[in-house]
Amino acid sequence: MTEEIRRAGGNATPVVADATAAADVKRLFDAAAERAGAPVLVVYNAGNNRFRPLLEMDDAFFEDLWRLCCFGGFLTGREAARRMLPAGGTLVFTGATASIRARPPFTAFASAKAALRALAHGMAREFGPQGLHVGHVIIDGGIDGARLNRRFPQFKEARGEDGMLGIEAIADAYWHLHTQHRSAWTLELDLRPFKEAF
Amino acid sequence: MTEEIRRAGGNATPVVADATAAADVKRLFDAAAERAGAPVLVVYNAGNNRFRPLLEMDDAFFEDLWRLCCFGGFLTGREAARRMLPAGGTLVFTGATASIRARPPFTAFASAKAALRALAHGMAREFGPQGLHVGHVIIDGGIDGARLNRRFPQFKEARGEDGMLGIEAIADAYWHLHTQHRSAWTLELDLRPFKEAF
Amino acid sequence: MTEEIRRAGGNATPVVADATAAADVKRLFDAAAERAGAPVLVVYNAGNNRFRPLLEMDDAFFEDLWRLCCFGGFLTGREAARRMLPAGGTLVFTGATASIRARPPFTAFASAKAALRALAHGMAREFGPQGLHVGHVIIDGGIDGARLNRRFPQFKEARGEDGMLGIEAIADAYWHLHTQHRSAWTLELDLRPFKEAF
Amino acid sequence: MTEEIRRAGGNATPVVADATAAADVKRLFDAAAERAGAPVLVVYNAGNNRFRPLLEMDDAFFEDLWRLCCFGGFLTGREAARRMLPAGGTLVFTGATASIRARPPFTAFASAKAALRALAHGMAREFGPQGLHVGHVIIDGGIDGARLNRRFPQFKEARGEDGMLGIEAIADAYWHLHTQHRSAWTLELDLRPFKEAF
Repeated sequence: MTEEIRRAGGNATPVVADATAAADVKRLFDAAAERAGAPVLVVYNAGNNRFRPLLEMDDAFFEDLWRLCCFGGFLTGREAARRMLPAGGTLVFTGATASIRARPPFTAFASAKAALRALAHGMAREFGPQGLHVGHVIIDGGIDGARLNRRFPQFKEARGEDGMLGIEAIADAYWHLHTQHRSAWTLELDLRPFKEAF
Repeated sequence: MTEEIRRAGGNATPVVADATAAADVKRLFDAAAERAGAPVLVVYNAGNNRFRPLLEMDDAFFEDLWRLCCFGGFLTGREAARRMLPAGGTLVFTGATASIRARPPFTAFASAKAALRALAHGMAREFGPQGLHVGHVIIDGGIDGARLNRRFPQFKEARGEDGMLGIEAIADAYWHLHTQHRSAWTLELDLRPFKEAF
Repeated sequence: MTEEIRRAGGNATPVVADATAAADVKRLFDAAAERAGAPVLVVYNAGNNRFRPLLEMDDAFFEDLWRLCCFGGFLTGREAARRMLPAGGTLVFTGATASIRARPPFTAFASAKAALRALAHGMAREFGPQGLHVGHVIIDGGIDGARLNRRFPQFKEARGEDGMLGIEAIADAYWHLHTQHRSAWTLELDLRPFKEAF
Repeated sequence: MTEEIRRAGGNATPVVADATAAADVKRLFDAAAERAGAPVLVVYNAGNNRFRPLLEMDDAFFEDLWRLCCFGGFLTGREAARRMLPAGGTLVFTGATASIRARPPFTAFASAKAALRALAHGMAREFGPQGLHVGHVIIDGGIDGARLNRRFPQFKEARGEDGMLGIEAIADAYWHLHTQHRSAWTLELDLRPFKEAF
């Protein structure tokens, strides 16, 4: 991906870090600061959707989902805000259908995503008046990217044309959040394919 | 406003109509069709915020708010959909804080706005798969326009810089909805000044 | 039903009234007052669930549902509050799944029920501190009563034991609302059969 | 408290356990089983409301709140369900205003409480059809108990008569959940003093 960005005239540096480890998250932001100064747009997009009947969830299964979906978002949001204030900027968290609806066997995932959403709402209320725009985007549907298409190659065809969320289309929405005038900021929006049942 | 649009190189024709009268709404869409063909972007923006203690509301007060905020939206949405399908397009309804929170003395307004919101959600689910993008925008704050500024001239100063929603900023969000790729449509987003407490 | 109540040692007087006509609603409350004084528990339970694709809804279809589901609730709530304040009492509105989720072909019904719900929430905030307990009960499922069982006799069997909401079980919840101590009042609760998918 | 219950003719055994440690929670349920067999009503009521500006939250502050408010609920709910199924019973989680509204400086608490609420909703959907009634009670206001009254002795007087949630009144609602007929179960209800602004 770095290569792709560069070929298109952009500039990118990949940094490998564990989003759930505070030291790693700090190191990531420090590395970014060295190359490009304070961040202006930060997206927390981690969060694997895993599922299991509740009685078969061991402690680690439940905790790990929270750690990845929510705690990493807390670490990232806190470190981002520390570096972005008072200049301001945009901080977006990626949500899911499960953020607002808990359905088995996704209960642990839904719990973690609901925790992330509340975190985003609280940060929006706290940091907005200081000039930091916090957004939360609810992705409702399958994303037309390498991960899903590799694991479920038949899914894309079954969905039909534009039946999965296009990555560029998602990026457009995030970019719109980033470019909104501060007199009319959006905290939350949902994104889904036009043909999605919901 | 028509003059302004024309001076800027655009094209606009004002039509006076009663949004709560089915015949008027049909006439409006027919007039638009004559000049410009089927609509591609329709916004239902009517809805005066009026308030009163509940025991002082007479029947007409409660009904009129529903008629303007919700029934006009039904008429407009239905006539728009009849003309926009199957080609598709965008249909946006303007909501308010009251759409999701009913506080006295705004109970009648909140009831009407909640009715409009449910209408928009139902239409989104029904028409989305047919290619018509239905959106609902929750405006949470005072709009920096002629109406509010004339009635409460001191409000703008009290709010400070960018403390009221800019009209162009609102339009940007509506335009973003209209230009979204159909693989990632938004049904609902909120808009508020960065300094708004909520 | 009156007979049943009397045989059980109770006392009941049926009054026929059009819930959507202000004069009728007033007459109803006056008749009740003559027999029994000011009301202490009032339930607004009207609201037929009708459905239709949106493009086939004529104006009257959309308006009639609002008139029955919401406007009648406004008239009833207002007349009840006028007679119950300042002594206090309980006023309960019956909601439905559609109150919080608008799905075609139930869009008109959902719009009307969302309007009723907002009305109930606004009244709760306005009248609660004056001693009038306003509640809103979301019935999520089929009710095991004469209406549904006559129209869809096969439904009850298909649902299995306790798969439809028992009328006494619903009444228990309403009674619980009525008997709550004012230091811990419930505004909203949902009711559904244990086996209902939601 | 044990003494009080015994004097009133009841039977109670206190067990000290760390709700956030799986082994302790298991031990607690085993101890209860020894004395009284499988549980029929379990309430998860832990969860201290602590607050802090987000930039001053260290990792442990954020994590500890989740561990107490949500993870302990997961452990308790899982161990309870293992022992209550297939006989059934009632499992209630205590929520707060913050469960549905994240306001600084309560962001960490709100995130944890939102996570608990989603857990409760997911468990309700998973276990309900198996006969286990899961409920979530949103407590919106100050509780008239020893903890709050000791820390803020002036609060009770400032609130006035019945301005704080009575503990017996709360218990009544939990008991109502437990005694509901399975054809009409409540998943969620809110409780607040009649004079609470919300």
